[in-house]
Amino acid sequence: MSFPKWFHELAREVSNKGRWGPDDELGTMNLITPEATLRGVRCAKTGRSFSLALPLHHDGPQTGRIPNRINPIHTMIGINTPFMGDPEKTCLSDDIIVMGTQSATHWDGLAHASYAGHIYNGFPATTVVAEAGATRCGIEKVKTIVTRGLLLDVAATKGVRRLDAAYPIVPEDLDAAAARAGVSVEPGDILLVRTGQQEHLFAGDRDAYRLPAPGLSYSSVRWLREKDVAAVATDNFTFEVWPAEDAAVVLPVHLLHLVDMGMMQGQHWFLDDLAEDCARDGVYEFLLHASPEPIVGGTGSPVNPVATK
Amino acid sequence: MSFPKWFHELAREVSNKGRWGPDDELGTMNLITPEATLRGVRCAKTGRSFSLALPLHHDGPQTGRIPNRINPIHTMIGINTPFMGDPEKTCLSDDIIVMGTQSATHWDGLAHASYAGHIYNGFPATTVVAEAGATRCGIEKVKTIVTRGLLLDVAATKGVRRLDAAYPIVPEDLDAAAARAGVSVEPGDILLVRTGQQEHLFAGDRDAYRLPAPGLSYSSVRWLREKDVAAVATDNFTFEVWPAEDAAVVLPVHLLHLVDMGMMQGQHWFLDDLAEDCARDGVYEFLLHASPEPIVGGTGSPVNPVATK
Amino acid sequence: MSFPKWFHELAREVSNKGRWGPDDELGTMNLITPEATLRGVRCAKTGRSFSLALPLHHDGPQTGRIPNRINPIHTMIGINTPFMGDPEKTCLSDDIIVMGTQSATHWDGLAHASYAGHIYNGFPATTVVAEAGATRCGIEKVKTIVTRGLLLDVAATKGVRRLDAAYPIVPEDLDAAAARAGVSVEPGDILLVRTGQQEHLFAGDRDAYRLPAPGLSYSSVRWLREKDVAAVATDNFTFEVWPAEDAAVVLPVHLLHLVDMGMMQGQHWFLDDLAEDCARDGVYEFLLHASPEPIVGGTGSPVNPVATK
Amino acid sequence: MSFPKWFHELAREVSNKGRWGPDDELGTMNLITPEATLRGVRCAKTGRSFSLALPLHHDGPQTGRIPNRINPIHTMIGINTPFMGDPEKTCLSDDIIVMGTQSATHWDGLAHASYAGHIYNGFPATTVVAEAGATRCGIEKVKTIVTRGLLLDVAATKGVRRLDAAYPIVPEDLDAAAARAGVSVEPGDILLVRTGQQEHLFAGDRDAYRLPAPGLSYSSVRWLREKDVAAVATDNFTFEVWPAEDAAVVLPVHLLHLVDMGMMQGQHWFLDDLAEDCARDGVYEFLLHASPEPIVGGTGSPVNPVATK
Repeated sequence: MSFPKWFHELAREVSNKGRWGPDDELGTMNLITPEATLRGVRCAKTGRSFSLALPLHHDGPQTGRIPNRINPIHTMIGINTPFMGDPEKTCLSDDIIVMGTQSATHWDGLAHASYAGHIYNGFPATTVVAEAGATRCGIEKVKTIVTRGLLLDVAATKGVRRLDAAYPIVPEDLDAAAARAGVSVEPGDILLVRTGQQEHLFAGDRDAYRLPAPGLSYSSVRWLREKDVAAVATDNFTFEVWPAEDAAVVLPVHLLHLVDMGMMQGQHWFLDDLAEDCARDGVYEFLLHASPEPIVGGTGSPVNPVATK
Repeated sequence: MSFPKWFHELAREVSNKGRWGPDDELGTMNLITPEATLRGVRCAKTGRSFSLALPLHHDGPQTGRIPNRINPIHTMIGINTPFMGDPEKTCLSDDIIVMGTQSATHWDGLAHASYAGHIYNGFPATTVVAEAGATRCGIEKVKTIVTRGLLLDVAATKGVRRLDAAYPIVPEDLDAAAARAGVSVEPGDILLVRTGQQEHLFAGDRDAYRLPAPGLSYSSVRWLREKDVAAVATDNFTFEVWPAEDAAVVLPVHLLHLVDMGMMQGQHWFLDDLAEDCARDGVYEFLLHASPEPIVGGTGSPVNPVATK
Repeated sequence: MSFPKWFHELAREVSNKGRWGPDDELGTMNLITPEATLRGVRCAKTGRSFSLALPLHHDGPQTGRIPNRINPIHTMIGINTPFMGDPEKTCLSDDIIVMGTQSATHWDGLAHASYAGHIYNGFPATTVVAEAGATRCGIEKVKTIVTRGLLLDVAATKGVRRLDAAYPIVPEDLDAAAARAGVSVEPGDILLVRTGQQEHLFAGDRDAYRLPAPGLSYSSVRWLREKDVAAVATDNFTFEVWPAEDAAVVLPVHLLHLVDMGMMQGQHWFLDDLAEDCARDGVYEFLLHASPEPIVGGTGSPVNPVATK
Repeated sequence: MSFPKWFHELAREVSNKGRWGPDDELGTMNLITPEATLRGVRCAKTGRSFSLALPLHHDGPQTGRIPNRINPIHTMIGINTPFMGDPEKTCLSDDIIVMGTQSATHWDGLAHASYAGHIYNGFPATTVVAEAGATRCGIEKVKTIVTRGLLLDVAATKGVRRLDAAYPIVPEDLDAAAARAGVSVEPGDILLVRTGQQEHLFAGDRDAYRLPAPGLSYSSVRWLREKDVAAVATDNFTFEVWPAEDAAVVLPVHLLHLVDMGMMQGQHWFLDDLAEDCARDGVYEFLLHASPEPIVGGTGSPVNPVATK
């Protein structure tokens, strides 16, 4: 076994392999049933919506440390181009964008990670190819994501603006945040776990924002699996705690979530405005829309998640 | 006056310039009040959701006729890259995407069109620049779009699979479709007008899909303005009827909607599955989520619109 | 053996595997010795130069049939941006380009083709990876290309403006063109074989330009190997004759040149102006500069080849 | 007048406006006559060639400080794709590149800079547009660059490995370097001025490499104009000295060269290997090939300059 025993045991324990059939490419998104969606819909009581996305801009969170994963480049291919020849008449402006699918607020698709030669549900890692990208578990397979969202503000629960660098979020932290929020997690919910790490980003320190980072501990995976949540999103770069708690397994949470559980992860989500509102009205549940862009073969996708309360 | 008299009179009549103040960059999106959002929320009764987006793929609807506006290019910058050096351990796949903001299912932002030197609300067309794109009315200003959506299936109402090429959709057609749907349009609603034109696209004939095309007639603009809809989306390439009804004004509906009314337009929306479901249960209203990606300075944005019934 | 016997026998016969050592990544570029370069230099007698490149433009030769290989997209990231804030003072314009390395006039690098699991010199095909591209035989390894060039105008030799579609250029054609040119091919020379196929391109018919196409016959490979030329370039899309002479081996010349001989190929070269000049003065030899761009890991590179007579 | 008097007087003095006619878009490239080319050809005596280009790589010199000007991104769109379906048979690898035209070793085209509303030869700055780029003086107009090159190693002449940050190279420095090189500058030559600044780049310190930087002083412009050189290239980021000697004129040398003289500039040229060789054999003149890529409308172009001695 390539990894320490604890990892493989935990992987087996939380595995959803085969749970939704041998051909399933959706993983825990299967938990978003019409009922789960309606549970989310019922949370929309005031009609106020919050965007949870960082702007797509060349000054985004990427630092260049990940080869070729760039911040968005937006350029104009036409600026008030006179469509009829006459600048007084019909003029059009048009643009293109070049970006990493994971450069800002995004979903990690299930094909983003692999180990021991496999991605989720036992599909060979070789199903990810240069020409077509992820031929299995491509992000386009996830058509819609509409369910109940719950904000677990771990930072606020611990009474800090920002969790310490490298702070591992454990089950007790999630329980405490849920208790504070007065919510009970149900199957198909999507959890938004707030660390406060974006304080670094907004201060202009992208390196500090990146790592070391507070994030989910591998010990939280079993908890998430037992709750049968549909997905988890955080307001940091690495999603999970960095550096890893056991140097022998880098990014264990990525592997357990994406490969074993088949659970998508949200990263770089902007949770501050929502958190402020939840603190104000004491309501930490909402209707969450976070459908990815249908990038065929994508291992991830930018997303503008919207919480409606 | 650069255009025929009828155009300038109509432009004056439907104009929303100054309606939401001299600095407004949202236009009719202002009509999506919390009440409008809740009206949409109340339409979500079964929890079934439909994605209204075409896949983002290099084989998309663009034909190359619009210089530099390309179909999406998706390439891998990493394929199962061994993060720890050992292919048995943590491996990651990552990708980038290069695309026109309007290459597939998208929103036209308010800065997409101009005439007589201005975009919406009297902002100079020169506010669109190469470096920063649309410095006024950039698509990122539209944070969230959550409201009631109504499907007006004009093709089905006329008893055809696909409207004739160059068929202009007039107010009577919209009234008939609304009557058939048993809905009454209210302020802040978003209308999805179905032409059936995508039959060409799915048959592999992108040129026929592009034009000539059935679409909104300039005569429908007053109707839309009176109803105070928040936006309109169609299942074709040109949005409005092509060729234009009056050769002296190319794309008049684009100009009236974007520049004078400040109303965003949706193009290339995939409405077939939704239309089939509406025909089955007779329900043509739903909760619509169609928040754009926050492309700073964008004149448009790809979107994965989701209808929840 | 995966291919017919004739192919494997020919491959063995023309192979340069190991000829320049087990670590060689340059192949026949090794034949461009200082002496070969000086032979080219001596051909520059009048100081007149000719560019052999097609323009890099969105309206280039690519038709979209090769997934994701696009014509160049050139967009401005700045237009007269006031560097000091004042438009009267220092203003700068800047741009980016997105292109397939093989979208227009280019070199095929040695890593562009493989068969039976290997590229040139026995390097495993797996040395081409997503992150770093061609880790062996990347185009950047070819620092400079300065040698004698010879124009073999096969079309003119046969007295036609353009060779018939699917016409296979055989050794006799090359001998006849060389005789007409009054040149004798020497080791390290680069041959420019003209088919006249670009007549289609300049007529706006990119599909006809692409294929079927006149080009090198597999039977010319032995001839080229015996002459020990450094490289060969043509004025067509497919380089070799299309369709292949033996349907059992598609692109045999690509495989024999790139994989077995380790010989780079030039495609889409613009030879008309040069050919006209050579016909005028009867001089078909010249100093040729055709150094690729140092794209690290590139399987090819755009090039602006220059012939100086 | 927008700039200080000294600038406008110098601009008038060195101006080549109208010198080659009102429609000229080549500027000092006109000085590369066949005779100038042959003077360069005669310098090629040993047949040894040197590439003067930095590798095109995502780890290039760009630091992200210039919005949207990125280091090259090279990604594979195909890796050993079985062209016949069988991986044992014909397989092809293909790639694309996304880059700033000025991200690494490049030429500044004449449309790169403007002031007082004009680029070179009095063409309005408005001739640079979003759709087509530089419609006047686009880099594609410069078909070929083949002439004599002279290395002026200012750093070595001053007995240092690297000139001090912000050291302004004045005429006396150029005279001293030419005297040391034993060369006399003639019309149509291209000068390669070495500062040694790339020591920072190769040490991995891109910020220090960028600025402050030693470079040409505005006082060198008159000298260059009198010598009637065709172009000048340097081994630094900013080309000219940074910060500017007179804060009232940022990048004066760029303006005087590009706008008034119509003289292209080379930046990020790799001169170390060449300099070492010149120091060894005492020969500082050579045949220089530095033809740009024909990017239609380009304000610049990547280039792989080659010096042949």
